[in-house]
Order: sequence, then structure tokens, then C-alpha cells
Amino acid sequence: MPQKPFLHTLLSPRLLDLYDVNDSIVVIIDVFRATSTIVTALYNGAEKVIPVAGVEDCIAIGKKLSAVTAGERDGKIIEGLQHGNSPLEYSREFIENKVLVLTTTNGTRLLHMALEKGAESIISGSFPNLSAVCDHLVAEKRNVILGCAGWKDRFNLEDTLFAGAVINRVKEHFTIHCDSSLMAETMFSKHKSNLLKFAPQLTHYHRLVERFGLIEDIKYCLTDDVANVLPVYKEGKLIVQK
Amino acid sequence: MPQKPFLHTLLSPRLLDLYDVNDSIVVIIDVFRATSTIVTALYNGAEKVIPVAGVEDCIAIGKKLSAVTAGERDGKIIEGLQHGNSPLEYSREFIENKVLVLTTTNGTRLLHMALEKGAESIISGSFPNLSAVCDHLVAEKRNVILGCAGWKDRFNLEDTLFAGAVINRVKEHFTIHCDSSLMAETMFSKHKSNLLKFAPQLTHYHRLVERFGLIEDIKYCLTDDVANVLPVYKEGKLIVQK
Repeated sequence: MPQKPFLHTLLSPRLLDLYDVNDSIVVIIDVFRATSTIVTALYNGAEKVIPVAGVEDCIAIGKKLSAVTAGERDGKIIEGLQHGNSPLEYSREFIENKVLVLTTTNGTRLLHMALEKGAESIISGSFPNLSAVCDHLVAEKRNVILGCAGWKDRFNLEDTLFAGAVINRVKEHFTIHCDSSLMAETMFSKHKSNLLKFAPQLTHYHRLVERFGLIEDIKYCLTDDVANVLPVYKEGKLIVQK
Repeated sequence: MPQKPFLHTLLSPRLLDLYDVNDSIVVIIDVFRATSTIVTALYNGAEKVIPVAGVEDCIAIGKKLSAVTAGERDGKIIEGLQHGNSPLEYSREFIENKVLVLTTTNGTRLLHMALEKGAESIISGSFPNLSAVCDHLVAEKRNVILGCAGWKDRFNLEDTLFAGAVINRVKEHFTIHCDSSLMAETMFSKHKSNLLKFAPQLTHYHRLVERFGLIEDIKYCLTDDVANVLPVYKEGKLIVQK
């Protein structure tokens, strides 16, 4: 029987070069909130999402394509951009048939780091598209890196919990010798029956809820399959895999 | 009431510069096996342990001081050195009143990285000296970084479990807003009643036990307080805090 493909969990962008990104599907995970926002915009009919690393690019590309520009740093809309990084801003009424150009603190940054390291297969995941991600990984039968974007290179638990949720569903299909993955699945299994109840213990929760009042964002970002499509990166943009 | 000092958990040496090492006690943690070996040699009467980053230094300093030289890379004794990185090699009969010069894959490397970043207060911890570490941290009332050495910059669970064991004991005395610490304590609490039963799931267990047959090392390194002294780093060496 051929060996099953490998699955690893990356706990910080800073560790990216320890993994073989060229030969793997890289899942970008930024639960609060970039990858929740990306999948929501696409689910609600956005033509594409263009992830950009910097604010200047965001403004320039937005102008050129008459696109919606969005981005935050430290939880606030960046000056010069139009919208923020809340998935709840991207209703079908607003975003259908539009292009979204997005820059964020962590998620879009990790995506660009993976590209620079030669990743050729990049998708985006969060609880709103958990099933789409898992179905794709099982179908592809390739090595996988679950890439937690973290917070400014620090470990965070919400991205780890999503990695754990994926592992919990797909582990029979992969070879997993990786303490990060073992930990991620353990943390998810412990809290899966009530992620929302656990959320107030997360560092990021305090920033989003206590400083910005974004409890509805938190609830949405932790809900399975409410925007269950698969964003795949192709030639500078994220589009829905048909 | 003054704020309690901060405690953070570092999950990989690669993340060291995200933390304020200058203003903290840095606990070097390399459970399998550097910090278990260091504390055992000191507990059994070694005059001092000199941690060195490279093999050449190890040989040269060993010669100069007529010291025991020890070191491993990838679990094997390095050519030119006399001893390995097993705590069970350092009985009182062998090591009492001697100097041990030690270089290892992860633990001594993290110690030198912390020194380079300006750390001024460094101690070494593992399960064999859990109580000594906790007592010191509570008494000092300073910020703490629990520094997991990991494996070649990757996250590992045995170091995280020790960080969790420390947090579990000292948390009332610290301000802890850190997902790494929350995770570490959760993992420890889940497995504390039987760390040895959990050990076979660890990546590092496979290397040590299946490749090198070191099950007794694993058992020893996971046992609380069997060498309960506090190694502190001072001017190039680790000595017992009196």
C-alpha cells in the first residue's frame, strides 16, 4: 500500500521554511478574520479577491480595477481604504460581481510568504468553509501544510483550533508525525462542543470584542460551513474552485 | 494592587525576538534531554556545567579544564566528545566534583540565543527540577519567559508539557495573556495523570525509543523532582543556586 501523504501544522509564519511548501497544498488560516472574510465575499458572489501585502498596492490596484478596497492593521480600517476586515460587511447585496482587494495584518501576509517560498497550491480556510477545505484535501491526496497565520508571528489558538478541526476530519487519509498537529487536534477535540464558550479565553477575543465590540464577528468566524466554498489562489487572485 | 509580572511561553527558538528577554527570567526547557541532563549532573555534585554552542568549543574547553565533554547531534554522541546527552550517564559516582562541558541540538543552542539577545537571568528547567523552578519564579516576582527549545526550531510537546506544568503551579502569581501558555497548561492538565502513557504519541519519543532504545531516559525526564536543584547561568556556566 503506498504511504499516505503527509500533513503538518505550521504554528507561526516564522516557521514556514521548516516545511516543504513546494510539494504541498498550503492552507492559509486566519480565522479572526482574513480567511473568514475572503470566503464570505466569494460565497456571496464576489468575482475575485486580490490579496495584497501592502496598503499602497491595495489603493493602486483598487483604483485600476474599480474594486472595493479593504484592509486593517491592528483591527482598524487603514486610512485610504474603504472597508474593514469583517466578514459581515460582505453581504451578497454589497459584494456580488465585485472585486475585493484586501490587505490584513496576518493572513494575506502569510499567503505572500508562501508564494515567495515557491508554494504552487494555496487555498484559504476557516470554520465557515471547513467542509469545502476537508473535501478538497481528501480528494487531492497530496501533502498538506495547515498554515496558521497567528498574530504578528505569535501562536494563536483560533487558527490552531481550525487546523485541529481539519485534522479531526481528515486524519485517516494522511500520515501525521507532527507534535503541532497532535496538539491542534487535542485542543479542538477538547473544545469542539462549544467553541464560543471557550472563545473569551483567547487573546484575540479581547482585542476584537473588548476593544472593538465585534462579538458577532467572532460567532460567525467560528461557525462551520456558513460560506462553504473553496477559495483557491491562481495568478494573483483568490477565486472559487468550481 | 500592583500588576502581577507577566508570564509568556515561547514555542520555538525562532520566535525569541518577539519577547522581552532583557526584562525577564528566561527558563530554558529541553526535556528530552539537555535540561534534564544539566540538572542531574549538578544535583549529583558536578562543580559546574558549561553549555557551549559548538563542538570545537566543547573539545577545546574540555581539554583546557580537564573536563568531561559531552554532546549529541541527532541523538548520537558527537565524534571527538566523550559522553552523550543521557541524564542516566551522570551518576554521583561519575560526575561529582567534575566539570561538564555540554553541547546539544536544541537546549544549549536556545540558551546561547537568549544570551545573544541580552538575557541576563537564565535558569534551566525540566520535570526533574519542576519544584525548584516554580519556587524560584514565585519568589523572584519578575516577568518570565518559559523557553521551549523544541526540535530544530519546530514545536515539540514535551517542552510544552513542562511549560504547562510550571504554569499550572504558578499561575496565580502572574499575569498571563498568551495563547501559548493557555495551550501549554491545557495540554499538561489533560495528560498530567499519566505523562508516560501519553509519551508514545510524541514525535521525539519515536526517535529516542524506537531508534535508540532510550525508554529509561524518557521515564526519568518526565519524573518530577528527582534532581530538584536550580541551575542558574552565571558568567559562562550553569551552577546550582544555593
